[in-house]
Amino acid sequence: MKQYIDLIEKTLDEYIPVKYPEEIYESMRYSVLAGGKRLRPTICLETCKIFGGNIEDALPIACAIEMLHVQSLIHDDLPCMDNDDYRRGKLSNHKAFSESTAVLAGDALISYAIQTVIEKSKNLSSDKILKLIELYTKAAGVEGIIGGQVVDIQSEGKKIDGEALEYIHTHKTADMFRFAFKAGGVVAGVSEDILNILDELGLKLGFAFQICDDILDETSTFEEMGKTLGKDEAEEKSTYTRIYGLKNAECKVNCLLDECYDILNKHNIKSEVIENIIASVKRKAKV
Amino acid sequence: MKQYIDLIEKTLDEYIPVKYPEEIYESMRYSVLAGGKRLRPTICLETCKIFGGNIEDALPIACAIEMLHVQSLIHDDLPCMDNDDYRRGKLSNHKAFSESTAVLAGDALISYAIQTVIEKSKNLSSDKILKLIELYTKAAGVEGIIGGQVVDIQSEGKKIDGEALEYIHTHKTADMFRFAFKAGGVVAGVSEDILNILDELGLKLGFAFQICDDILDETSTFEEMGKTLGKDEAEEKSTYTRIYGLKNAECKVNCLLDECYDILNKHNIKSEVIENIIASVKRKAKV
Repeated sequence: MKQYIDLIEKTLDEYIPVKYPEEIYESMRYSVLAGGKRLRPTICLETCKIFGGNIEDALPIACAIEMLHVQSLIHDDLPCMDNDDYRRGKLSNHKAFSESTAVLAGDALISYAIQTVIEKSKNLSSDKILKLIELYTKAAGVEGIIGGQVVDIQSEGKKIDGEALEYIHTHKTADMFRFAFKAGGVVAGVSEDILNILDELGLKLGFAFQICDDILDETSTFEEMGKTLGKDEAEEKSTYTRIYGLKNAECKVNCLLDECYDILNKHNIKSEVIENIIASVKRKAKV
Repeated sequence: MKQYIDLIEKTLDEYIPVKYPEEIYESMRYSVLAGGKRLRPTICLETCKIFGGNIEDALPIACAIEMLHVQSLIHDDLPCMDNDDYRRGKLSNHKAFSESTAVLAGDALISYAIQTVIEKSKNLSSDKILKLIELYTKAAGVEGIIGGQVVDIQSEGKKIDGEALEYIHTHKTADMFRFAFKAGGVVAGVSEDILNILDELGLKLGFAFQICDDILDETSTFEEMGKTLGKDEAEEKSTYTRIYGLKNAECKVNCLLDECYDILNKHNIKSEVIENIIASVKRKAKV
């Protein structure tokens, strides 16, 4: 894990230099280089490796996935969205810079990530690059994180059912995990069948990850998480824990993660890194 | 012109259906289908035709250019940016929907446009589609409209020189015209030399268009323009007219547009549509 994280940090730093007009690059760098677990790009690189691909070839799309993830956080934190002043223990982007710069930095990252994939993926065929961009736009857009985000905002203060919650979790969170697994697979050149398996793995892990996040929002402190907590309740957001209770949430996480292990075993996918990620979510979801 | 506009309107309407979650699609459609002159996609289609390409093949990228243009307007109008309640005589997106929906609709359009190009460009090679997406990301990003926008915001309330103003005009406005001309050329399969000529044409026409806009901001009424005017002065924006005066602005527009005619003549590019666009900018810039 550590090696991947170092490689991702170093590459993100290289991919986003500071040029004129400096403020926008500084703002993008501020959030992109603010640390974090780099789970999604790690999953992408590791999946590429598992299926015999070259990690170097997956670096541009792995970094693009992280840029997109950070973009969604910058805009999520805006006053008109979740209105959060802190992220990863630092001031959120619009507090460190300005609201207008945060809007523009987020906008910029969406296309900068794609530009990076095109410019840096020297060893990939045009068809592979196009397939990666297609996955990217679907994960980034109305069928992906934005769709999830819209339903999430609409559901504030309302009682929603399990189906609506599943829509939110699937698109707001799991779609990025599905994208990360599949992107690694595309770079390695796997078959459609394998892509479907990776999609299922990403869906289950992403879903578990989000429920775990809901649990931590109730049970952790600011110091542990580096962001404002208890906000779900304050904003009357429907979360898994609020609908089903903490204990059921933990059970659901365990169940989903066991299904991830089953998928790995069934298809003989061996990866210490992926297993460690699954184990860490399991550990954190303990109530 | 009319034929192109009708085709663009019809295709944009088809490209953005209403699906679940409806509000985000409605919000995207609200701004994308709000009319306007459709100049940029018209330029793209016409350029494709001039150089022997098939207009149908250029439709996806032409519509993507318009979606990107509309995206920039939605985010420009936000309270933290230009804070404009009206656009094209209608409430701006964040007033008709909500601020959070407007942020998300803009975000969605950036990737939706690219997704559309990939999914709808059935007759283009992967290499051509990639080239179009590369042009798109450069025009959309820190090297394009966002770079121009950042410097524009930074310069509010400050005295800036002609060089900084040229940077703003080039990137905030002209880059989209350059993109439109070049995208049409790419679809038609023109040479790099022709692309450079198209780039120059887009730069000069886009620059003239922006100075004309500065002139209209001072000399028009809300009824004529459908948006709040005199804002440049209220926000102490540096515009061409404020730096050089109205009469010099008109001269500059005429000079740039004459250079456009020269380029067309020199390279034997015959197009009534492009000539009409040039003539209409010339007419509007009369003080």
